[in-house]
Amino acid sequence: MAKMLSVVFARGFKVGSGRGGLKTKGDDVMFLVADEPAVAAALFTTNKMFAAPVRYSREVARRGHVKAIVANAGNANAATGDAGYANAKEMARLAAGYAGCRADAVFVASTGVIGRPLDMAKVRAGISAAAANLDVNAAAAAAAARAIMTTDTRPKSAQREINISGRPVRIGGITKGVGMLSPRLATMLCFLTTDAKASPAVLRRALGAAAEMSFDRVTVDGDMSTNDSLFLLASGRSPAPAIKAGTPRYRAFVKALTEVCVELAKMMAADGEGATKLVTVNVSRAASDAAALAQARAIANSPLVKTALFGCDPNWGRVLAAAGYAGAPFEEKKAVLSFNGVVAFRKGVPLPKSGAINDVMKEREITIELDLGLGKGRAVVYTCDYSYDYVKINAEYHT
Amino acid sequence: MAKMLSVVFARGFKVGSGRGGLKTKGDDVMFLVADEPAVAAALFTTNKMFAAPVRYSREVARRGHVKAIVANAGNANAATGDAGYANAKEMARLAAGYAGCRADAVFVASTGVIGRPLDMAKVRAGISAAAANLDVNAAAAAAAARAIMTTDTRPKSAQREINISGRPVRIGGITKGVGMLSPRLATMLCFLTTDAKASPAVLRRALGAAAEMSFDRVTVDGDMSTNDSLFLLASGRSPAPAIKAGTPRYRAFVKALTEVCVELAKMMAADGEGATKLVTVNVSRAASDAAALAQARAIANSPLVKTALFGCDPNWGRVLAAAGYAGAPFEEKKAVLSFNGVVAFRKGVPLPKSGAINDVMKEREITIELDLGLGKGRAVVYTCDYSYDYVKINAEYHT
Repeated sequence: MAKMLSVVFARGFKVGSGRGGLKTKGDDVMFLVADEPAVAAALFTTNKMFAAPVRYSREVARRGHVKAIVANAGNANAATGDAGYANAKEMARLAAGYAGCRADAVFVASTGVIGRPLDMAKVRAGISAAAANLDVNAAAAAAAARAIMTTDTRPKSAQREINISGRPVRIGGITKGVGMLSPRLATMLCFLTTDAKASPAVLRRALGAAAEMSFDRVTVDGDMSTNDSLFLLASGRSPAPAIKAGTPRYRAFVKALTEVCVELAKMMAADGEGATKLVTVNVSRAASDAAALAQARAIANSPLVKTALFGCDPNWGRVLAAAGYAGAPFEEKKAVLSFNGVVAFRKGVPLPKSGAINDVMKEREITIELDLGLGKGRAVVYTCDYSYDYVKINAEYHT
Repeated sequence: MAKMLSVVFARGFKVGSGRGGLKTKGDDVMFLVADEPAVAAALFTTNKMFAAPVRYSREVARRGHVKAIVANAGNANAATGDAGYANAKEMARLAAGYAGCRADAVFVASTGVIGRPLDMAKVRAGISAAAANLDVNAAAAAAAARAIMTTDTRPKSAQREINISGRPVRIGGITKGVGMLSPRLATMLCFLTTDAKASPAVLRRALGAAAEMSFDRVTVDGDMSTNDSLFLLASGRSPAPAIKAGTPRYRAFVKALTEVCVELAKMMAADGEGATKLVTVNVSRAASDAAALAQARAIANSPLVKTALFGCDPNWGRVLAAAGYAGAPFEEKKAVLSFNGVVAFRKGVPLPKSGAINDVMKEREITIELDLGLGKGRAVVYTCDYSYDYVKINAEYHT
């Protein structure tokens, strides 16, 4: 297997990390620089309460080309008013100085506590340190994945190389956190790079398609962050021809991009606050795809389902009830439910508990498969269980 | 204060309780009988996965007149197929024998584990025992409130007397459980009686109005039961004149009925699984009532808000973020948020934490007041916090 290079796997990017002192220890600033202005696409939280860096980066995204991304962990710069916006802009300006570009060609992201002013002296020190160790090797990539962590217990990186018209195209990235929101530091941030050639419009469309099947399908607690940001930069340095919408090349690119995003999304779900299990909810033969998604989300967000999973209990009653209240067609007599391939409920009748089902429930990865027997709709959602530690992490933190 | 007579506070009803052996200890069957066929109204879970007694009682409710209600705790008779429906019907038939009426004049309700056949020998014994001690005193009322309990830590009863045209009208009732769904026994069941004179249509309308402002506004975990049932019987034995829709008498009756329902609903929220606090979410000056309700529900259902409350943390960031993602208008710069009257966030600016706010967060009842500064919409929702015990109760139970 190739070395994990994540954001510097694609040609045309360097990354550096540095410590400014915003977190209690370790690097807390990440600085990603493109050799030349890159085609850019981004997606942000849809929360009407959103942080200053989201406001700033939304404006940058409209321009379509970006030279650098600067991110800090330890402070979300959210609910910080006009001063917070000025600080986000200043972060961009400082980063632009090192990247050799204008401030409006720099994406900014922050994650951490809400409602506290950013300590700009620390941010400045962190950016300066990160800019001093820009590199393209595995160590730089690993350090970047660590610098953006907050309550994450491990760094999250992924990469994929595909051939387009016989030439290699690379995609890679890092992500952090999931809560989804939290003063307890659990915003989702994701930074992706590729060396594909694509217009801003094509890149946006590809990112939207990939996110819909990955990050949009992760849920830890159904809460939505004020800071969630997903960035994709494309250097165009691959020798492969340009990717145009609606072509086989486009589909191949979206497929690979989606795979990278799903891999990162599953890492986030598995590392949800207090999580002991990665849970995949797979709803099939629903009345429609939209129905399947509503039902998969209801199951994935149900605290009763999640606590049962923590208790290794194949609690089919809770799963079916969640499917029943999701506002989509449901018929108890047509539903078949299984956990990791072992059927627990078939067409109106719960099956006697077997040793087999007790065994699979102890596994660290659980797939809940619900076949509704109604139509052709399907959806997959990723989540985790609810443990004592979820409550502990979120109750013990004090603003 | 008057003795608590709950379901026998209104004239024209008797209640009895008995043990059939469905719960590990104590009475588990409640039997309520009207002296004469009573006008009836009922509301049920909207879950598409619903239990056999709900299917049976829905048919009974269409008739408009009911002579008795029989309920058991310890087994929900849900996901039990056609045999379950036959058992619900048999419960009604057995109760009808004691009440001296037809089986289609008996409401049936069950709460407890899902997916296990009802042990009809036990049910029969319980109904027989309950029928043998029908009475109108406080002891009978208290025993009934206990018989229907599952994970409830205390019985829940309420009553109210009002004057209509100078004559007394009484309303009373008992309720149990909240989860809202659970194989861990947490269906909501509520039994209300009144001696008001009203037609089935007027009674249904009044019950709908009262439930909308009470039981529809309680949430523990956002999950919805397969068995939730709310029944209201009216004996017409009050000397007050009949209640017609749209009159001052109707409004007075709905007001009192709503007060009884709110009192019972708040008891359910305060006794949510693992709850340490009763939480009232009061959203005002929202864009509309519907917007306020969506935002109050988002706040009340947010696991991050609920764990913060358990931790006695005035976490305004989580409350505002939930209001921001509820799909309703929200402007950070106009919002004012307080906990038990102490302001934590005002128009874009978090307030420094004071001793006062730390003190109020330790109280057992917390009112979160969010003034959105946008319009005239308002809504109140009742909930509780999430504690370690919520996870414990729901993880350790095994189907």
